[in-house]
Amino acid sequence: MPRICVFDVNETLLDLRALDPHFERAFGDAHVRQAWFSQLLQTAFVSTITDNYKDFGTIGATALDMIATRRGVTLSQQDRTSILQGMRKLPPHPDVRDGLERLRNAGLRLVTLTNSTEQVAQEQIKHAGLSEYFERIFSADTVRRLKPAPEPYRMVAGRLGVDIGQTRLIAAHSWDIAGALHAGCATAFIHRTGMVLDPLFERPDVVGADLHEVADRILEKEGM
Amino acid sequence: MPRICVFDVNETLLDLRALDPHFERAFGDAHVRQAWFSQLLQTAFVSTITDNYKDFGTIGATALDMIATRRGVTLSQQDRTSILQGMRKLPPHPDVRDGLERLRNAGLRLVTLTNSTEQVAQEQIKHAGLSEYFERIFSADTVRRLKPAPEPYRMVAGRLGVDIGQTRLIAAHSWDIAGALHAGCATAFIHRTGMVLDPLFERPDVVGADLHEVADRILEKEGM
Repeated sequence: MPRICVFDVNETLLDLRALDPHFERAFGDAHVRQAWFSQLLQTAFVSTITDNYKDFGTIGATALDMIATRRGVTLSQQDRTSILQGMRKLPPHPDVRDGLERLRNAGLRLVTLTNSTEQVAQEQIKHAGLSEYFERIFSADTVRRLKPAPEPYRMVAGRLGVDIGQTRLIAAHSWDIAGALHAGCATAFIHRTGMVLDPLFERPDVVGADLHEVADRILEKEGM
Repeated sequence: MPRICVFDVNETLLDLRALDPHFERAFGDAHVRQAWFSQLLQTAFVSTITDNYKDFGTIGATALDMIATRRGVTLSQQDRTSILQGMRKLPPHPDVRDGLERLRNAGLRLVTLTNSTEQVAQEQIKHAGLSEYFERIFSADTVRRLKPAPEPYRMVAGRLGVDIGQTRLIAAHSWDIAGALHAGCATAFIHRTGMVLDPLFERPDVVGADLHEVADRILEKEGM
């Protein structure tokens, strides 16, 4: 049986750069988007380490306020809303549709697993026009532990009724790959612009510049 | 018995801005220092969540390489060394010596707890001229779990032979405060430039703009 492909969503399938104009308007600097996402992840990881679960949307909103305070910027309600609601309406990266098509047509089973709540994830995938490719949309929120903790990856395997080694997590984030490998998944890294693998962690057996390359290598690995 | 004061070191006592000229020279932008420290913390937190311990120096060196790759910059061996060795030679913030003096003269016991290895921590405190204030220098490396995991905070209390509630962690980082509170310590936050408390976590009972203010409030809390 070929492994089930488990896709991360934000930055892996969907392009956060669509938020840049909102950050440009609110902070006068589009690069603040990266600082925000980085603060969001920091808070998420600390909440995991200290067993203090908060949902990803709440963390995202708080991280935005922290970045604004840190930079001495007062965010209007409109700026805040356009960024936070914008997360639900991100476009897919240009290689995503073809890559998913290719994997599905080869007969692979595809699902998603995100730190966003299930409601947000459903909305994101639907708005990006990708619903037809995925048999299930999973959220870490269901087990109240965010990736890269092992519980969300295990939950996906459990719900699909397969051994965790029969899943492959596909992500553009080194930390997501590290968490999935630790939990026992196979992995694949999409080397999107500005993303790098952390050499301190085990290396995924599939690495590619986009989902075209990654899909090719996954099909090879699965002997298809 | 008044609580024992447990000081975080990097950014709390010592000023990382001393590294800015090295980042300016290596990357053409001193702000990369913050991006580096943020990547360092991200890797540290992921290594904790995935039970893959690496010492803080190794993580710091790797994070520097990741930031360079991400920005398409080739670091010379000299740039790399001046940043990483520079961590051992940071100056104290200007309020630190007076604040420590005040707490010590009031009769409080003072120690440090850092994610740096013990050897680096010893060197840092000595170079900053602060050795006389601290009865012990502790490193999370000893228990091979980095802050904000509970083990380092518990180790300090254990080694000092006191209940964990008899220690107070003093830091300029919201994540360190969150970890200490989770472990059972009292805490104090120093509101250094650009640092903000995370409103999603419990609030420390002592907050101040610098170690003068924080020392005043600690002495009040301890009834001294």
